[in-house]
Formats: sequence, C-alpha cells, structure tokens
Amino acid sequence: MNKNSYNIMALAPNTSNKRETVCIFGTGDFGRALGHKLIQSGYPVVFGSRNTQTSSLIPKGAEVLSHAEAAQKAAIIIIAIQRQHYSFLTSLAEILHGKVLVDVSNNLKINQYPESNAEYLAQLVPGTKVVKAFNTVSAWALQSGTLDASRQVFVCGDDMEAKQMVMDIVRALGLTPLDQGSLLAAQEIENYPLQLFPMWKFPILLSLGLVTFFFFYSLIRDVIYPYVYESKDFSFFIAISIPNRICPIVALILLALVYLPGVLAAIIQLYRGTKYSRFPDWLDKWMLCRKQLGLVALAFAFLHVLYTLVIPIRSFVRWRMSNRILSLALKNETEPLNTTHAWLSDSYLALGILGFSLFFLLGITSLPSVSNNVNWREFRFVQSKLGYLTLILCTAHTLVYGGNRFLSPSSYRWYLPNAYMLSLIVPCIVLVVKFVLIFPCLDKPLTQIRQGWERNPQYPE
Amino acid sequence: MNKNSYNIMALAPNTSNKRETVCIFGTGDFGRALGHKLIQSGYPVVFGSRNTQTSSLIPKGAEVLSHAEAAQKAAIIIIAIQRQHYSFLTSLAEILHGKVLVDVSNNLKINQYPESNAEYLAQLVPGTKVVKAFNTVSAWALQSGTLDASRQVFVCGDDMEAKQMVMDIVRALGLTPLDQGSLLAAQEIENYPLQLFPMWKFPILLSLGLVTFFFFYSLIRDVIYPYVYESKDFSFFIAISIPNRICPIVALILLALVYLPGVLAAIIQLYRGTKYSRFPDWLDKWMLCRKQLGLVALAFAFLHVLYTLVIPIRSFVRWRMSNRILSLALKNETEPLNTTHAWLSDSYLALGILGFSLFFLLGITSLPSVSNNVNWREFRFVQSKLGYLTLILCTAHTLVYGGNRFLSPSSYRWYLPNAYMLSLIVPCIVLVVKFVLIFPCLDKPLTQIRQGWERNPQYPE
Amino acid sequence: MNKNSYNIMALAPNTSNKRETVCIFGTGDFGRALGHKLIQSGYPVVFGSRNTQTSSLIPKGAEVLSHAEAAQKAAIIIIAIQRQHYSFLTSLAEILHGKVLVDVSNNLKINQYPESNAEYLAQLVPGTKVVKAFNTVSAWALQSGTLDASRQVFVCGDDMEAKQMVMDIVRALGLTPLDQGSLLAAQEIENYPLQLFPMWKFPILLSLGLVTFFFFYSLIRDVIYPYVYESKDFSFFIAISIPNRICPIVALILLALVYLPGVLAAIIQLYRGTKYSRFPDWLDKWMLCRKQLGLVALAFAFLHVLYTLVIPIRSFVRWRMSNRILSLALKNETEPLNTTHAWLSDSYLALGILGFSLFFLLGITSLPSVSNNVNWREFRFVQSKLGYLTLILCTAHTLVYGGNRFLSPSSYRWYLPNAYMLSLIVPCIVLVVKFVLIFPCLDKPLTQIRQGWERNPQYPE
Repeated sequence: MNKNSYNIMALAPNTSNKRETVCIFGTGDFGRALGHKLIQSGYPVVFGSRNTQTSSLIPKGAEVLSHAEAAQKAAIIIIAIQRQHYSFLTSLAEILHGKVLVDVSNNLKINQYPESNAEYLAQLVPGTKVVKAFNTVSAWALQSGTLDASRQVFVCGDDMEAKQMVMDIVRALGLTPLDQGSLLAAQEIENYPLQLFPMWKFPILLSLGLVTFFFFYSLIRDVIYPYVYESKDFSFFIAISIPNRICPIVALILLALVYLPGVLAAIIQLYRGTKYSRFPDWLDKWMLCRKQLGLVALAFAFLHVLYTLVIPIRSFVRWRMSNRILSLALKNETEPLNTTHAWLSDSYLALGILGFSLFFLLGITSLPSVSNNVNWREFRFVQSKLGYLTLILCTAHTLVYGGNRFLSPSSYRWYLPNAYMLSLIVPCIVLVVKFVLIFPCLDKPLTQIRQGWERNPQYPE
Repeated sequence: MNKNSYNIMALAPNTSNKRETVCIFGTGDFGRALGHKLIQSGYPVVFGSRNTQTSSLIPKGAEVLSHAEAAQKAAIIIIAIQRQHYSFLTSLAEILHGKVLVDVSNNLKINQYPESNAEYLAQLVPGTKVVKAFNTVSAWALQSGTLDASRQVFVCGDDMEAKQMVMDIVRALGLTPLDQGSLLAAQEIENYPLQLFPMWKFPILLSLGLVTFFFFYSLIRDVIYPYVYESKDFSFFIAISIPNRICPIVALILLALVYLPGVLAAIIQLYRGTKYSRFPDWLDKWMLCRKQLGLVALAFAFLHVLYTLVIPIRSFVRWRMSNRILSLALKNETEPLNTTHAWLSDSYLALGILGFSLFFLLGITSLPSVSNNVNWREFRFVQSKLGYLTLILCTAHTLVYGGNRFLSPSSYRWYLPNAYMLSLIVPCIVLVVKFVLIFPCLDKPLTQIRQGWERNPQYPE
Repeated sequence: MNKNSYNIMALAPNTSNKRETVCIFGTGDFGRALGHKLIQSGYPVVFGSRNTQTSSLIPKGAEVLSHAEAAQKAAIIIIAIQRQHYSFLTSLAEILHGKVLVDVSNNLKINQYPESNAEYLAQLVPGTKVVKAFNTVSAWALQSGTLDASRQVFVCGDDMEAKQMVMDIVRALGLTPLDQGSLLAAQEIENYPLQLFPMWKFPILLSLGLVTFFFFYSLIRDVIYPYVYESKDFSFFIAISIPNRICPIVALILLALVYLPGVLAAIIQLYRGTKYSRFPDWLDKWMLCRKQLGLVALAFAFLHVLYTLVIPIRSFVRWRMSNRILSLALKNETEPLNTTHAWLSDSYLALGILGFSLFFLLGITSLPSVSNNVNWREFRFVQSKLGYLTLILCTAHTLVYGGNRFLSPSSYRWYLPNAYMLSLIVPCIVLVVKFVLIFPCLDKPLTQIRQGWERNPQYPE
C-alpha cells in the first residue's frame, strides 16, 4: 500500500509486475519453509548464510549469498535465526540501516527473557525498522500447505510503513495479518504460541476440583455406606452411577457460575452508581472466561445425557428390573399405575430435555462463525435471555428430580444430604438475585447506569 | 489506500510512521470507548466537547478541545452524539467543509425517522463527506475487547475515498469492514442492530402455529378421549408423550416445506418458459428463509430423538412393561417372537436413525464456516441431493411407523385420524411432484431454462 | 491500490469518487448477473455485444455497445463468453492491447482442454493482461444475493497490478479474493468448481469397502448360521443389529487409520535420519486426508451411538427380556446380582461414552472457525494428545466389550471369529508402535529430526 508512494518518488519505473525481493537470514528449517512459500507466491527470495553453497534443501529459484550481499538485495530481511545468534547482526549495522527486519523467532518458555526478541533486535541494530511477524506459523504448516490451524499472523512494529509492507507479504501468502500495534506487543505475540488454552485453565481446574469433591462425596454415600451397613458390593457404581451423579451437579454449578458474575457486577454497579469504576480484578477475569465456563458445563451436561440414556442397557439395571418383576410374580401381585409418580418422572425428564436442547443451542451460537453472523442485540438475546431460560429449566429439572425426597430421612446417610441438593445452592441464589434485580425499582437505575448515567457525575457533560 | 495520493500531492513530508489524527465529537459512552480503542491502535485522538475539562473518564492520551478546535486537527470526525443534537453542527459548517464525518448513531426503533441519521447529517452540513459506520459495534464490546459477537462493521457513503479512509480505520481496530455501497444504504445499516432474527420470524411463527394445533389435536385424542370413554387419567402424557408426537410431525412438515418452494419454482419456470420473470413475492421470501426453516425442523427432530431415547427410563413405560409381564406370568403364558413385528419395529427405527443423521449432517454443512469451504457444486450436492434423501428417509420412517395401523379403525377416535397421518400429506406431495419433475421430458427443458434459455426470447442474442 | 500510482501519473484529476468503468463482453446469464452486482456496488458497467439493442434483461443503468466501443470505455474487460467463441477477440487485438482481460469461464469436464481457458485467452490476444477470476461464483448466487456457499474468489494472473485491480473489484462486491499466483494456476482454478469433495473420495470409498465386507461377514455369522443350524429367522437383524455391529468396527478401524500414517512417517524419518526426503506418494496423500478419515469415522461412531441407544425400544429386545423373565417366573427362580458382569457391562459403556465424547470434541475442533482460533500448540495438543486418548478409550471399549468372550469357542461360528476381534487388529498395532516410539531412545532422535537435524547432513550450516 504505502509502497506506492515510495515507488513513485524513488524509483518511478519500478511500477512493474514483479514483487519485491525478500531476503531471509538463516537457511534453517523455518527459513527454508518460508522461502519456499514466498517463491510460490511470486517473491524473488535471496538467502543470507555463512555458507553460500546451495544445497538441495534450499528451495528452487532462491539464491544463497553472504549475509551482507543478500541484505543489499532487499528492503525486507527476515531474521530466521535464533536469538542467541543475533549478535553478529551488529557487524552488518551499516548495510541494514533503514531496512525492515522481520523477527520471526519464538522462545522455549513464556517470558524467557526480560525483553522480547524483537525489542532486543531493535536495540541491537538501531536504525532499522523491526517488525514482529510469522512466529505463530509453523514450518510444517508452511511446507505441507495444510494450515489446518490458524491462518492468523500477528504483526506488530513501531514503523507503520514497515508493518504495512510485512502485512502485504502475509496476505500474499494466503494468511491473515492482524495488526497488534507497537513493538511493545511483541512480548505478548512471542508468548502466544507457547500458550495452551489460557482462558480454559480456570474453568477446567474448577471443574476438576468439583469433580474430585463430588466423587468422594458420592463414593462415601453410595458405595462405602451400603458396604458398611448392608455389606453390599456396589463398587461398579464407579463406572456409571457415580459419574452420572457428578456430571449433572458440576454442569449445573458451572452454568450458574456463568451467570453469577453478571449478577455481582449489577450489584456493584447499583451500589457504586456508575459503570466507569473498574470491577475488582477477580471479577474481571471471571467475566472474561464465562464462555469457557459455559462450554465446560455443556460438556458435562452432554456426558450426563449419554450416561442417562445408557441406563436401560446396563446389566445392573436389567437385573434390578427383572428381579423386581420376579418378586412381584412370586407374590402373584400387580402394581397399579401411580399417576403422581408418572407425572414427576415424565416432567423431570422433559425439563431436562428442554434444558439440554437450549444449552446445546447456546453452545452452537458460541461457535465463532455463528456468533460473527448475528448482531449485538441477537447475541445478547441468545446469551442472556435464552441463557437464563436454560438455567431455570436445568434448576427445575434438578428440583423435580428431587421431588419429595428432600424431606425424606432416608436421603441422609451419615448426615450427608444427597449430592444434588448441594448442587442447587448456587443456581438458586443466582435466580433469586436475578429475580430481585428485574423489579423496576432496581432495573430502571441499572439500565440508566449501563447507558452511561452516573449517580455522582465527576463533571457535567 | 487513497490516502497516499492525497499525502503525496498535499503534504509530501507526511509519509511518516504516524497514523492520522481522528477527532471524536461527543465524550459520551460510545465516543470514549471508540477513542480508547483508537488510541490503543496507534491513532492520535482529539475529543470535541462543549466542556473541555479533561475528566478521568476520557481515555489517557486523548486531548479534549472545543468542537471547532478539535475539528481543525483532523480530517476525519466521528460524530458520537445523538441525532437530536446534530443541529449545532450547522454552526461549524465552514470548519467541517471537505472533512469526513462518520455517523455512528443508532435509533431506538426501526425506521424511526423518514430519512436515515447519516442522510440527515449530510443534508445538515453540505460540503462534508458523510460515511456511516460503527453503529453495529457496542461500546461494551469495544471496552472489554471481547467482541464475542460480530466483528463486522457495515460502512456506506457516497464518497469512495472517504469510505476507504474509514474502512482503513476499521481494519486497524481489528474489525472487518463491509462496504455496503452509497449513503442510501444507511437506513438499512441503522435498522440492522435493531433487528432480532428477522429471517427466523416466519419459520418460528409457523412452527409455533403447528405446535399449538397438534398439541390440542393430540390432547383431544390421547388425553381427553381416554378420560371420557375409559375414565383413565393420562394427563401426564402432556410432559413427554404428546411433545414426542408433536416434534416429529412439525419436523417432517417443516422439512417438506423447505423443498416445496423449489418444486413450485420449477413448475412456474416450466409454465412461463423463462427464468427471468420474477417469482411472486411470497415465493421469493419463502425461498430466502429455507435455511432457517430447515434448522428449525432440525431442532424439532433433535427434540424428537431425545424424547424417544428417554422412553425406556420413563416410570410409566416401566410400569406398563412390568404389568404386561406380570399378567402373562399370572396366566403362565409365554409369547412367541413376532418376526413381522420385529421387522417393522427395527426398520422404522433404522430409517429414523439414518434420516436424523443425514439431517444432522445437513445442519453442520449450513454452519457459515463449513459452507464457506465448499464449492458451489458441493454445496448443491449436499443441500439438494442429500436433502431429498433425508426427506425420503424421514417420510419412510413415518410410513413404516404407521405400519398397518393406517386402516385399523381403532386409530380413529372421534373420527380424528392419528396425527402422524396428517404430517405425511405435505412430504408426500413434495416427493411425488419432485419424482414427476425428474422425468426427462420435464427435466430437460427445466435445465435449459435454468441455464438462461427462454421459450419466447425477447430479442435474439 | 496500485491504481493510485497510475492515476497520479496519468490522470491526476481523476482522484474523484467514482469507481472505474467495467466492461463485460457477453450478455449471457453470468454476464448479466455480474453486471447487476457491479452496478449495485457502484461500478459503471458497459456491455459489449454483437446485438446492441438493450433488452429488459440487461441490468438497469448499464449501456450496451459493440464490442469495440465497449472495450474502449474501460480498462478492465470481463470476458463472459464461452471458450469456443474466444477466437473473435483476435480481431479486437489492437483495442484490447494493454487492457486487463478477466477470464470467468468454466469447463464442463475436469482438464477438458490441454491448456486452461485463461492461458488460451492470453495466447490468443497477446499484449493483454489476463486474470482468471469469478469462475467459482454462480450466476444464481450473484442474482439472489444469498451466496450461501463460498464467498471465496480465486484469482490468478501474471500481472501483479492487473490482479490487484481485479481483487479490488472482488472485495467491492463483498466477496473474498484469494491470490493463487501466476496464470499457471488457472488450470487448477478452472477445475475447482467441477470437483465434488475430492479429499473425501478415499475415506468414503474405503469405508464403503469396509462396510460391505463386514456386512456380509456379519450376515453369515448372525443370520445365515442360526438359520442353517437352528432354523431361526433373524433376518430382521439387517435393520439394526448388523448395522450396529458394522458401525463401531468401521469407526474404530478408520480412527486407527488416522494415526497409522503418522506412526509410519516417524519410522521412515527415524530410518532415513532426516525429515527432508519426501515420503512415498501414497503416504503423502494418506496424511493429507486424515481429517476426512477422522470425520467419516466420527459419523460411524455417531450412528453406533444412536443404534445402541435405541436398543431398549426395539420390539425384539423387549420380547427377549420379557421372555427371559417369564421363563424364570415359571421356574419360580430369582437371579443373584453378578457383580463381575455388572462391572464389565458398566465399564465398557463408560469407556464408550468417554471415547465418543472426546471424539465429538475432536470433530468440533476441526470446524474451520474453531481451528482458526487456536494456536499451533493447542491444535496439536487436541489433535495428537486427545486424539490418541480417544483411540485408547475406543480400543479399550472394544476390548472390555469382548470381555471373556475372546477365548470362548461359541464365539467362533464356521471358524469365523466375532467381527469386533478383526476390528482390533489395526488399532492395537498403532497403539503398540506408538508406545514403542515414546521411549526416550527413539523419541529423542525423532524430535531432533523434526526440528531439522539430519543424521547425514549434505552440507554444514
């Protein structure tokens, strides 16, 4: 883009068809892969190397020259060597002056060095325009052309024109450049490929904690208690019965935790009378990982559905049923239909089905390509209105499942209530507070605050 | 982009690294959020305000000046004030002359004013280049940086260069500009954020209508009839049995309605002998919401699957089964295996499974990111060939489910046929007509017409 | 973009708001649709035609002129006529000199002509700049504006500037241009719209082969054998029982085949001591369709889940169960709970549920919009670590399902082992070899080789 102005002023006849030569320092794996891709996309490529022998590994059509010679041939030099070898570049400072250096390096650990590799490079060779790019792309992906993972290339740098030149190259390679701002962002960009689902860490650790707690809780109630008091071996409950107790509990608690921070934020905003003071840090972080919390909850709900649907295939359940029928047959008895029981059983199943289906729908709308195609109002309608409806349905599902067992003393073993009762605490709190917040006397000021109104404005607009 | 030509001619030394200053009129919520984001992306920002006191809410690094002073500092002025306050801009007409004004405003209702806010602005301050943009982005999304919903920014305006400048800013903020043409499009762009799934309205209303009708139909047949004639209380059927009757019926009818307009269009084209005369309006609208119809049908099919799979867990079903076994046991009888019955039961289940799986596949391919990765021929293969196969399988599933019940008088209660018989009408019509249309004597002229051939051409090519 | 330089030098006053005129040769279906869309996007359009009468079909606002006159009005000429009529263009060679010709043509068959249409056009009218574009877009999609399928427009050409001009038009129409390099790529681009899931061909053919084999295998063992020896008619097993035997087997084999090429590649790399020599062709192709293999496997796993979950609804299964209970009732017997049996049954179900859920998760992450949002490390973690975990869980599911049936002679009918035993061969081989490759003595050199190290380097770096 900005190349034009440069071309016109400096070398007017250069409005030819050719792309400009790109120089790559380093003939290592990544350098060669990038060179190969650049040649494919029509860029003349020249490698700078200590050893100028052309090997069979160098992509066809590329020249290999000494570092100094190669650098002179191009305005853009891609530094495909490791940080610890950067120091030799100081000797080339004169040739590199005014050129665009592209730092593609990665580290082995997050925050390995006090400053980012790109900033270190900029300090080493002042007078150059350093741009950070390509570090998120793997050599293998470039070679195989599959690029199954991200096509996004994060680009940052202090010189706008240099950044534009690099972004043009990125686009020409069929990748998507994302401008991340000044070179200060390099640290973050260098850490990015080393991250492993950072937003998922909290939801997954939390759910693992809950799973562990409820596993031992259910183990004590459902396996150890009958073993101690009735000498029955129900150890096989570990395979399905206990997971199918844990999954819905964890799913419901996590789902409620998705909506809890919104409720807390509303209370804080109402109390402070403004939306402009920052939330406490933990609340900010919590709000940012709500999507992940919800998706982990959905995964547990999905497991709960599968575990529930296999119930009638389980050998134990079949045995229990035939045993019950046989004992009735021996007594020559038949049972009348218990309509209340049928109502309870059918309605908790129906609530569960509706809740899960809505939850599944929420999960689909959180797919990036779907959420990109809805407007803000639609997104909020789905995530807020349908989200609360899901929470209500799932809570009702658990309440009806409980039925009249809440007060029955047989549900308490060793004074431990049934696990699902514990799972109802958070959702009920969220729903009650949300219900209170809907009252006009609270909803009206809250809406005003969220539109920018302040109870104690700091200056008149 | 076009900035270059401007730069080179007007202020040649300005080919520096800096982004150009952006001015924002209005220090309200959205103005501040946008200013914050612009500063993050490297733009110098100056606010124009009646009150030039810098408050803690103004993003760091931004200047606050009077409107006139601020406007002079920038070529682009973002008007982040409400339409009713636009009138004061007339007093600044001289300073604003030739500048790019970006209208970011939204209304509270669809088509609130006769002309769009952007057109009103252009009339108010002639001599400026008005561009509509950013109205689809929420302040909250800009502040939090989450941008979970759409990153798409619709841009329109009469001046190509001004539009390009705004689109460059949009890109620099990490958003995706979408050129919507001239300022005439502003009305539509302003209505966009107020829309709530407009394409889904018809499919959802239609399905709600069908659900209501079949709910009362089934209620009469399955709950009221046995209550009146056999004094049996089957009210709990409302929870699962009746929904599981409604869902497959509505799903099948909606699925058939996805393919009906295509069949109607073919008949109209064959009759008219050309593809260039417009279809009636209702048919056009119907054809445009086929995807939504299909997805609503899939949702009902999904519910039907879940409702069906929980059948063996239902307390009523367990009671009925044990009761039947007990009554046989009392009579000391055993049943022989009815192979015909086994065949019917297994094949309607198998047809349902295959139909649902194909339907699910169709749903996945309609995800934007998937359909973007297939070519036109592949898309048509999936949506047309696999779509008809799905319809055939689902219709067969319903037919086999009926089995020999069609003619049995016990299926008619109060002269009402079983609900699933009603659901077969539309799919059977569609399949029969489609089958007729496949015959070469009809298929050949239809293909020609669709390739542009006309029976009565208006002029010789 | 590059237009600027052109504008500034040649026609400085042309920095106006207007888009440049586009000429379209041919008033056929596609030409008109494209013209319509161009006019909507603000381009003046002029048609070149033998017959210059304006018909009602020509989009409003477009002029229709003779070919020569029309060509003179524009710098870009879209050739919307069929290849066999190209020859008349030679007579216009003088007028077309230096212009950009856009070839939008498609063929009826893959590789119909020795050279691509675009290359043929370039040979016919030398002195023009030929760009291939728009052939992947359908006239219908342009007219209806739905563009449900791909918005991607592949562009290739030898002249960079001409290509940029065309890509600007593509963007202005709301489509996504993808630069595919020089005109040599035209052949591939012309073949693209004729392709029907080329990457899916091998996985689908392979799975069909496996399905056929295992269908007859199961038919012999489960239907013909009991018919011959016990005169029992189990023909209805064809509907559900046999598919539910085939699906898991095919799913497991295909899943193992996803990981087999990676293991083979590792062995080849270890043996050769370098990653730079190419793999055999079949291995390359195999590796490129692993994603498709995995998704076909997931489809079979999905069917297996549905077939399994309907088991308790099957009329045959209900009959078998009630029969078993009745025969026990007649003998006045009850069964004790077999804990080992309960353990086996529950744990193979639990393994299946966990395996399928993980597999489903893998499927979701392979959606383009999801995989675009993860970094390379995350993508590899999911596809490799979680993928192997899925394979282990699914293999374990099958092993436990077998339980102690492996050695029982009743599992062998006509010396044919149970089909699931055959399905375990490939997964077990993959898991054993992978397990061996994890040992440090093999893993360390392999990691080095994959980072570019060579046992016999061809030249010293």
